[in-house]
Amino acid sequence: MIKVIIIGSGNVAQHLIQAFNKSKKIDVVQAFSRQKQALAHLLDSHKITNNFNAIQEADLYIIAVSDDAIASVSSQLPFENRLVTHTSGSVSIATLDKKNRNGIFYPLQTFSKKAEVDFSQIPICLESENETDFEFLKKVAKIISHNVYEINSEQRKALHVAAVFVNNFVNQLYQMGNEICIENKIPFEILQPLIQETAKKIMRLSPKEAQTGPAIRNDQQTIATHLDFLTDENQKNIYKILTQSIQNNGKKL
Amino acid sequence: MIKVIIIGSGNVAQHLIQAFNKSKKIDVVQAFSRQKQALAHLLDSHKITNNFNAIQEADLYIIAVSDDAIASVSSQLPFENRLVTHTSGSVSIATLDKKNRNGIFYPLQTFSKKAEVDFSQIPICLESENETDFEFLKKVAKIISHNVYEINSEQRKALHVAAVFVNNFVNQLYQMGNEICIENKIPFEILQPLIQETAKKIMRLSPKEAQTGPAIRNDQQTIATHLDFLTDENQKNIYKILTQSIQNNGKKL
Repeated sequence: MIKVIIIGSGNVAQHLIQAFNKSKKIDVVQAFSRQKQALAHLLDSHKITNNFNAIQEADLYIIAVSDDAIASVSSQLPFENRLVTHTSGSVSIATLDKKNRNGIFYPLQTFSKKAEVDFSQIPICLESENETDFEFLKKVAKIISHNVYEINSEQRKALHVAAVFVNNFVNQLYQMGNEICIENKIPFEILQPLIQETAKKIMRLSPKEAQTGPAIRNDQQTIATHLDFLTDENQKNIYKILTQSIQNNGKKL
Repeated sequence: MIKVIIIGSGNVAQHLIQAFNKSKKIDVVQAFSRQKQALAHLLDSHKITNNFNAIQEADLYIIAVSDDAIASVSSQLPFENRLVTHTSGSVSIATLDKKNRNGIFYPLQTFSKKAEVDFSQIPICLESENETDFEFLKKVAKIISHNVYEINSEQRKALHVAAVFVNNFVNQLYQMGNEICIENKIPFEILQPLIQETAKKIMRLSPKEAQTGPAIRNDQQTIATHLDFLTDENQKNIYKILTQSIQNNGKKL
């Protein structure tokens, strides 16, 4: 059994513990949480500690805490030369304290406590300082996911920015669609099939091939009607900028 | 059997013919297409005409042509007092020639020739000038779809604008994510599970509840790192505006 210790108790920490708990090849021997209660539904209470000096020996330590806390947490670990990773999309591997062998174990997904996720579909992006550790991280990652990638820190930064576009920003456009529906007494559910199809479509077509609508057709009359319809300045502004962006894109060869 | 005639040969016309062909309650007795070849894979050649004067009698005429052509096509129909509808999200019912009884039969979906769609999941938005015609349109729509709505012309305009946000603009954000991946030699497929999950999540949570990421957390350091990373002015600009929009939203009660 591979011994893993999770440090942290947030969404990522909890989803990782759940995923590891399902495997017989991995034993989450311990987890560190300032508030022990936060993990009580996932682990026996004797496996949860809030004391850095009580952290046991393991093959892999995964620090799943907020970005700001990674440096401090890694420097407080009371041991050396063990494999210590973090799960952040935007923090460099160099942020981890050098006294241990460092790596990255970054699951690229949107986690929220309310929504269950199928970890086997989640891409895990790995990085490490040496080949042996990399092979070991790959072995662990493949136990819980079908999609494992080697991604260096510079690529990971790019990936995190791209993820903000396709996740947070896309969700904000859903929110604006929702607002327009509410203002006009239209049930938002009418848009659900379109939203799901828009996402599914790019599994078969590139986003460029998938594009339709007034912007790519350069349908000036519809664009003018829509801008005239929108009264919220924020909505109007985003409409203009994304229409322009689609049209510039259409001109690229 | 309900007799339907489709006027037009584009994506919407073709998907409608396919959907009606699957039902035993509806007979697509004829279709009008300037280029008869465009529909040859869907209908027997004797059912396709390119001559307005050869258009037969039917219970329902559906004009599925480009927005600009709706007025002209409806005025060229060589009959009166029959039920004539169009399929556009952005054209008023008043655009149809008054010599016939008018209505709207608007399937809210993104159609492309390459991608098959399950019509039963597509919302169909109906409008008509009188109750009898509305009940008839509802009957026809329910034969091919589970999701049928009464939506007036003003609401339809709002819905079309909202659809541009959640479809065309969302797809443009996918495109930007794709560009960032290509520039950094990352396979776009890594983002696919995140994209699918982002769409699925709002079937359970409102977009506001589903929001995560640096903007809503007001994580200034990550936002600055991302803006510093982006070199394309268009990407930078959209990053700033959507981050601001998420943050304004977070403040709304």
